Amino acid sequence: MQVALVGITGYAGMVLYQLLQKHSGVTKIHLYDHKLAAPTKLSHVVPIFSGDHTAVFPYDDEAIISDNDVVFFATSAGVTAKVAPTYLTAKFPVIDLSGDMRLDSEAQYTEWYRKPAAPEKFLRQAHYGLADFESAKGQIYVANPGCYATATLLGLAPLVQNDLIDADSIIVDAKSGTTGAGKTPHAMTHFAQVNENIQIYKPNQHQHIPEIMLELQKWNQRVPAIQFMTTLLPINRGIMSTIYAKVKSGVTSKQLMAAYTKMYQSKSFINYTGDQLPAIKQVVGTNNCDIGMVYNRVTNVVTVNSVIDNLLKGAAGQAVQNFNQMFGYPETEGLKLQPFLP
Amino acid sequence: MQVALVGITGYAGMVLYQLLQKHSGVTKIHLYDHKLAAPTKLSHVVPIFSGDHTAVFPYDDEAIISDNDVVFFATSAGVTAKVAPTYLTAKFPVIDLSGDMRLDSEAQYTEWYRKPAAPEKFLRQAHYGLADFESAKGQIYVANPGCYATATLLGLAPLVQNDLIDADSIIVDAKSGTTGAGKTPHAMTHFAQVNENIQIYKPNQHQHIPEIMLELQKWNQRVPAIQFMTTLLPINRGIMSTIYAKVKSGVTSKQLMAAYTKMYQSKSFINYTGDQLPAIKQVVGTNNCDIGMVYNRVTNVVTVNSVIDNLLKGAAGQAVQNFNQMFGYPETEGLKLQPFLP
Amino acid sequence: MQVALVGITGYAGMVLYQLLQKHSGVTKIHLYDHKLAAPTKLSHVVPIFSGDHTAVFPYDDEAIISDNDVVFFATSAGVTAKVAPTYLTAKFPVIDLSGDMRLDSEAQYTEWYRKPAAPEKFLRQAHYGLADFESAKGQIYVANPGCYATATLLGLAPLVQNDLIDADSIIVDAKSGTTGAGKTPHAMTHFAQVNENIQIYKPNQHQHIPEIMLELQKWNQRVPAIQFMTTLLPINRGIMSTIYAKVKSGVTSKQLMAAYTKMYQSKSFINYTGDQLPAIKQVVGTNNCDIGMVYNRVTNVVTVNSVIDNLLKGAAGQAVQNFNQMFGYPETEGLKLQPFLP
Amino acid sequence: MQVALVGITGYAGMVLYQLLQKHSGVTKIHLYDHKLAAPTKLSHVVPIFSGDHTAVFPYDDEAIISDNDVVFFATSAGVTAKVAPTYLTAKFPVIDLSGDMRLDSEAQYTEWYRKPAAPEKFLRQAHYGLADFESAKGQIYVANPGCYATATLLGLAPLVQNDLIDADSIIVDAKSGTTGAGKTPHAMTHFAQVNENIQIYKPNQHQHIPEIMLELQKWNQRVPAIQFMTTLLPINRGIMSTIYAKVKSGVTSKQLMAAYTKMYQSKSFINYTGDQLPAIKQVVGTNNCDIGMVYNRVTNVVTVNSVIDNLLKGAAGQAVQNFNQMFGYPETEGLKLQPFLP
Repeated sequence: MQVALVGITGYAGMVLYQLLQKHSGVTKIHLYDHKLAAPTKLSHVVPIFSGDHTAVFPYDDEAIISDNDVVFFATSAGVTAKVAPTYLTAKFPVIDLSGDMRLDSEAQYTEWYRKPAAPEKFLRQAHYGLADFESAKGQIYVANPGCYATATLLGLAPLVQNDLIDADSIIVDAKSGTTGAGKTPHAMTHFAQVNENIQIYKPNQHQHIPEIMLELQKWNQRVPAIQFMTTLLPINRGIMSTIYAKVKSGVTSKQLMAAYTKMYQSKSFINYTGDQLPAIKQVVGTNNCDIGMVYNRVTNVVTVNSVIDNLLKGAAGQAVQNFNQMFGYPETEGLKLQPFLP
Repeated sequence: MQVALVGITGYAGMVLYQLLQKHSGVTKIHLYDHKLAAPTKLSHVVPIFSGDHTAVFPYDDEAIISDNDVVFFATSAGVTAKVAPTYLTAKFPVIDLSGDMRLDSEAQYTEWYRKPAAPEKFLRQAHYGLADFESAKGQIYVANPGCYATATLLGLAPLVQNDLIDADSIIVDAKSGTTGAGKTPHAMTHFAQVNENIQIYKPNQHQHIPEIMLELQKWNQRVPAIQFMTTLLPINRGIMSTIYAKVKSGVTSKQLMAAYTKMYQSKSFINYTGDQLPAIKQVVGTNNCDIGMVYNRVTNVVTVNSVIDNLLKGAAGQAVQNFNQMFGYPETEGLKLQPFLP
Repeated sequence: MQVALVGITGYAGMVLYQLLQKHSGVTKIHLYDHKLAAPTKLSHVVPIFSGDHTAVFPYDDEAIISDNDVVFFATSAGVTAKVAPTYLTAKFPVIDLSGDMRLDSEAQYTEWYRKPAAPEKFLRQAHYGLADFESAKGQIYVANPGCYATATLLGLAPLVQNDLIDADSIIVDAKSGTTGAGKTPHAMTHFAQVNENIQIYKPNQHQHIPEIMLELQKWNQRVPAIQFMTTLLPINRGIMSTIYAKVKSGVTSKQLMAAYTKMYQSKSFINYTGDQLPAIKQVVGTNNCDIGMVYNRVTNVVTVNSVIDNLLKGAAGQAVQNFNQMFGYPETEGLKLQPFLP
Repeated sequence: MQVALVGITGYAGMVLYQLLQKHSGVTKIHLYDHKLAAPTKLSHVVPIFSGDHTAVFPYDDEAIISDNDVVFFATSAGVTAKVAPTYLTAKFPVIDLSGDMRLDSEAQYTEWYRKPAAPEKFLRQAHYGLADFESAKGQIYVANPGCYATATLLGLAPLVQNDLIDADSIIVDAKSGTTGAGKTPHAMTHFAQVNENIQIYKPNQHQHIPEIMLELQKWNQRVPAIQFMTTLLPINRGIMSTIYAKVKSGVTSKQLMAAYTKMYQSKSFINYTGDQLPAIKQVVGTNNCDIGMVYNRVTNVVTVNSVIDNLLKGAAGQAVQNFNQMFGYPETEGLKLQPFLP
């Protein structure tokens, strides 16, 4: 297959390009970027790809549709809100790593992203691609989930789908490496500001909250809301989503464990690690989500710890997983990755 | 005054020694250490004090009592459990940075610290020195609070003392720099294990939980327990204690803010920063505790973020604050510190 | 004394402000900044000074001269090149932390800084304030040395002044923390670019080379040039200048050691550590320069390792040292600092 | 092929295991470790391999020889000095990542490693496997080069082989991430000691010096010695070897460039980057050595900057390269790796 990738200049685009180069089903990758006025060598656009002189073309939807079988967008918020209708109308397959098409209401998108939304008619045609729960098979437009949303939803699924916790008691303390904040230099991601520090940002306002709620409510209508906090860590990659909830009266510790075991024993990319709460390091470099869980008898609180690599399972890796589902490749094709050790 | 310091080889002892050298009331510091068999130059015992050839003496309680006016213990768990009775019997002033004398039950100490406790009669004579709430004036033996306990209790005080939250809803997600884990090399604090990683440790089992509960219940008997989780960060110094609780029915956002303002406006070392949740960096190097608070209308959860330098406010700094209270020095003597910038 | 500080928004300005607040001779600090259009609270201009509501005024040389006894400039390159003549003409005391007045030739300044120089007549009136060698007593305009220049010159002085090495054999491999690159976010200082990386920058082109050469040639006319390389480290503060040179025929290892001992035994801020090559950590937080030296019989090369805190000895600390010399304060006034431990 | 791997508990062994799992010629990997008394699951021995329950066996040379076609040793110094004769006598293929068999004199080994050497007769049978210059084809026992040696030799080869520099002027300032110091916790690699610090260690005494000299003198007998310094960086992986030398009279800048281009244009794993001096980040995760070079007309010094991943090109990657040469696999088999981004 010939695939288009828009947004090679960002971190998710860079990592996605690496994955696609190793995917057995991909014969050709065409690169595009909105910031370019003329075709430019990749080695100039992204110097770390120093030996790679592939051309990067200015964004052009006609060329993308005529020369490729599918397009990946690894673009920032606001880009696909504008161009998604073109592809949906043409029924051309899209895997969109941005948040633009994850919600189904224009008003909600604009409230959380503070940008103009795609028309609701198109928003409703996009498929929310939480790949371990919702197959992308047969879909035209996949909205690839956010990194925080992925770690949090996979951690919560057994509890929420099996109705094991008090629905209004969910508290999420999520932490992310700085690549989650993107590649554009800002005061908040300046080295001396991040290093030897941790900083909470967007308290109660992170834009992944509404996509998490949409999915949770699909699973269990009783969940009214979640408390969700995001903290910036002095590391490059990785998300840890630490989830607390009150266990429902009558539910036993064994039932909690059984729910995780049953739900995840056959999932290729999810490892339930029992009461060993996972560290970020064990998943960075892979498409895995490792999930541990401990129950506290004294407080009746269950703590779930879910870790992913924000650029793989939280972005490019899950995008390839969706690609595999859309086009009938084996689930782990292009994703047999090993953790960065040590 | 002549002061004794036992435990200069640990991080808290090193920082305490720096503070005492600048304290106007201290004329002489005598150093002691349990690991030495003969007097040794400080520059040999702790190489970073390369220019300081002060003698460090083997531990000797008779010499300590005869040559000093007070002794600070910056020793690891298990040391003062053995020697505290000597000082209490002699009515010789002690400021103990270890956890050995913070609880008042032998059984509880042994359960959480897995070591033999001091006799309960002596445990009950020690004063829990949370300096911003409990003055050490007139006390003989001050048990200086734990680092996590300090950040968490100062964050919770306005809510708990004023009964503003559901008493069984407290969830604390606390994070610490690695100096909190001490100076002895372990696999868990090996550079390549900590760096580019975060790790939860001792889930539901951290030994600061019981001292937090003792103090909370002094403040408000209705608090039955707290959910408390500790995470190791890839930084040297600093604690962030992020606290979540359900706001009691009828309590308004204004009341929450007023409680913090009222309680902390006159405290020298506590800064209530409103809805600006503080970052660790702004307090490292100081004896300050900065506390921010946000209320989420959607979930009815209040989030309090409390940050301290674990070696200062969480150890040596609060020890000097207690010293000032015991001996009548102005509260900020020796503690007018500036944050490490940047 | 009343002192003016221009450039509180940069790292050196921030640290200098902290030092001046603790200096016994300073009764009042007036803050100025070129970026402001109207007086603004410091807490707004530099949020980490959250509790400090001192006004910062727009830059105004008339006000500076009328309301103060001295002015410190902690501004970026190009600022004092324009305004220095005003102060020199008025004979108003200036301590300039920027590089604008360190060289004595317009052409050379423009070549290395790529900006318009101050007129040569004024350049020649400025005093190069390498405080441990050139007293600022009686000077009007002190050009405070660069951070790399300070570490390198102090490391080289005993060898060059005593003519102990082959004059054309000096090779300097210098490394710096990222605060040396300033507070403005750039791609090169973005967290994910610096972290888990080291990068050489400005090879053979660092603007501190000419000021080092000027001073070396004052000391020993035979030194024709130095090889000087700069590397960006993933740490906040600190410079290590590792210096290699061939030892002159007939010079013994003992003579090398004696030269360092003799030159530095009475200097308050310089510690010669013998063959223990110092680490950066032991000086960060202080105005010290620690220098170690080893001689290799096999290669006949002497290696000198000189470490400083780039923001203190390499900027604000040395500026205060020059201030003390200019106005007759004891050398260590305001500079009795302790290293950040650990 | 069936391959044995001894030393899975160290960093190089862990990474080598990952590489061998992806090598098309490897059908079975048998793991052995000297620290075990009985077969144990890998997931217990090295917890980060949490899902891998392969058995790790106690070291047993008979089993290794009977059950495998080749053995890799990723053991610490002193291990293969004892067991190498067994394999050499049996003519059983060995790839040895340790330093034990790199030198050819017992006395020299003992001087630098301070351990008993293998008998000289066996030392002389080992092949020094600098894979880009010395093919391992037909060899029985390959001594895989040290990490510092690899970066430094590849950086120096064009200059030394073509006699372009003054032979006694080579100065190497080499820096390494902490994984180079191994996985055993020590005070020097404790997080708080490494973080926010850099430290020179083993000045003029690093054990890679003699293997570098042996190879350089094979290339050019005139090189009498090199000045070589090693610095520990606060990063996990990567080596930067910065090399300085005086250019020989009459040699032009063009000749220098041409030497690098010619020598490296056809090497799969070496990228000559011209005057763009490479950063560590661009090679971590790969088996590449990136080399840049700048010539300074003022000082007549050439600076070469050579970067590798110490665990890949500096250990496990080069071991696989040697394996490919020994057994006739294509050079890049198992080594088509992508850099860790970002």
